[in-house]
Amino acid sequence: MTLRSFPRFITLEGGEGAGKSTVLAALRAVLAETGDEIVGTREPGGTPLAEQIRGLLLDTHHEPPTTDAELLLVFAARAQHVRETILPALERGAWVISDRFTDASYAYQGAARGGDANFIAELERRVVGIEPGLTLLLDVPVDVGLQRARGRGAVDRIEAEREDFFERVRAGYLSRAQAQPHRFRVIDATQPQEAVAAQAVAHLREWIGRQA
Amino acid sequence: MTLRSFPRFITLEGGEGAGKSTVLAALRAVLAETGDEIVGTREPGGTPLAEQIRGLLLDTHHEPPTTDAELLLVFAARAQHVRETILPALERGAWVISDRFTDASYAYQGAARGGDANFIAELERRVVGIEPGLTLLLDVPVDVGLQRARGRGAVDRIEAEREDFFERVRAGYLSRAQAQPHRFRVIDATQPQEAVAAQAVAHLREWIGRQA
Ligand SMILES: Nc1ncnc2c1ncn2[C@@H]1O[C@H](COP(=O)(O)OP(=O)(O)OP(=O)(O)O)[C@@H](O)[C@H]1O
Ligand SMILES: Nc1ncnc2c1ncn2[C@@H]1O[C@H](COP(=O)(O)OP(=O)(O)OP(=O)(O)O)[C@@H](O)[C@H]1O
Ligand SMILES: [Mg+2]
Ligand SMILES: [Mg+2]
Repeated sequence: MTLRSFPRFITLEGGEGAGKSTVLAALRAVLAETGDEIVGTREPGGTPLAEQIRGLLLDTHHEPPTTDAELLLVFAARAQHVRETILPALERGAWVISDRFTDASYAYQGAARGGDANFIAELERRVVGIEPGLTLLLDVPVDVGLQRARGRGAVDRIEAEREDFFERVRAGYLSRAQAQPHRFRVIDATQPQEAVAAQAVAHLREWIGRQA
Repeated sequence: MTLRSFPRFITLEGGEGAGKSTVLAALRAVLAETGDEIVGTREPGGTPLAEQIRGLLLDTHHEPPTTDAELLLVFAARAQHVRETILPALERGAWVISDRFTDASYAYQGAARGGDANFIAELERRVVGIEPGLTLLLDVPVDVGLQRARGRGAVDRIEAEREDFFERVRAGYLSRAQAQPHRFRVIDATQPQEAVAAQAVAHLREWIGRQA
């Protein structure tokens, strides 16, 4: 059983403060030119229940989840997100652009936390079943990204991790990109915001052109 | 990789209103005679985070979880419960008595919801890893249990299911008990409360005697 790939499903990936949310707005504007419906969403989250699960993952009001509990909570939210939000949108012909998706689990719960990649792959096959046609990876050195993210104020449970954790996240993302070049475009996100957005937009235009 | 069985880990199973919580109190009193530490707990729940996950599972304030999301939420809570509450207690020599455990997932998420038992077994091996030495199954016809449970007031998301759902739960439990007779004791829970408690206590005394 393999994953079903959707050309109109686009994901943004990258570590903390790489600029994902900033780029998402630029990509939305480009997709709007197609006249098609666009659904912008994020992970963990994207449905009311999945947003509640996000709250449990990022909260520091209870004991931290174990590695296994974190992995299963993330995939519970993703299963819900795919079934309730992403698939219905793709099936009615909309573009779906998500701020993070399954690649984030290989980077965070896998590479960084040491979760077994085979188990992650099995969860992906069993409860996700789909993959994006295009994934833009915003790559930035850890210290640069953290400085940006922490500049925004309150730090959540993940943002409070140590620097070596984020080094493993970054390496995990880059190795996914290398293994799946047909789907990934890596963007140097140390560039100024406008330059990053311009590159992301260029990749998206090229992708839209290929679908036509 | 097989499950590690703990003689001092005891679980109570059964459908809604079978009388699990009522029996738990009686069993606690018997265990108290040993002079050992006793930890009483429940599922889903048993840690602050796992109790929050329980809230998401039983709530009706958001859209219902899909079959997959429900399964992963239940196992996320269980992973947390085992690591934070059950294993530490067993490792310091305590008795642990839990109102529901993994058997409930085979009955509810498996038999009743149609989840794949192989996947449930893999989650059990990967994120649970332990099983009770003794499991008391309180068996009661669906209508009797529902009448008792609904007599208590507000109905949660699971209690609101249709009768055929609970018939599958009951059958799922009975088939687990038949497959693992070394661990299960089935009690006819249509009997008066005192008779049910007396049988549960007799099974527990026999079990304690065997460990001495
Ligand atoms: N290329 C850039 N150069 C400098 N600052 C940037 C750049 N891109 C984004 N920023 C700023 O860095 C901060 C983080 O950006 P943004 O929220 O888009 O990152 P993110 O990847 O979505 O982070 P998170 O993973 O925490 O959601 C924001 O304040 C944003 O304005
Ligand atoms: N053997 C019995 N005969 C009659 N009533 C009983 C019996 N056992 C329990 N009850 C009553 O039925 C109700 C449900 O019992 P209890 O809460 O112990 O069940 P439970 O299995 O824990 O239910 P749930 O699955 O909803 O937690 C309570 O009001 C209890 O007093
Ligand atoms: Mg963001
Ligand atoms: Mg009860």
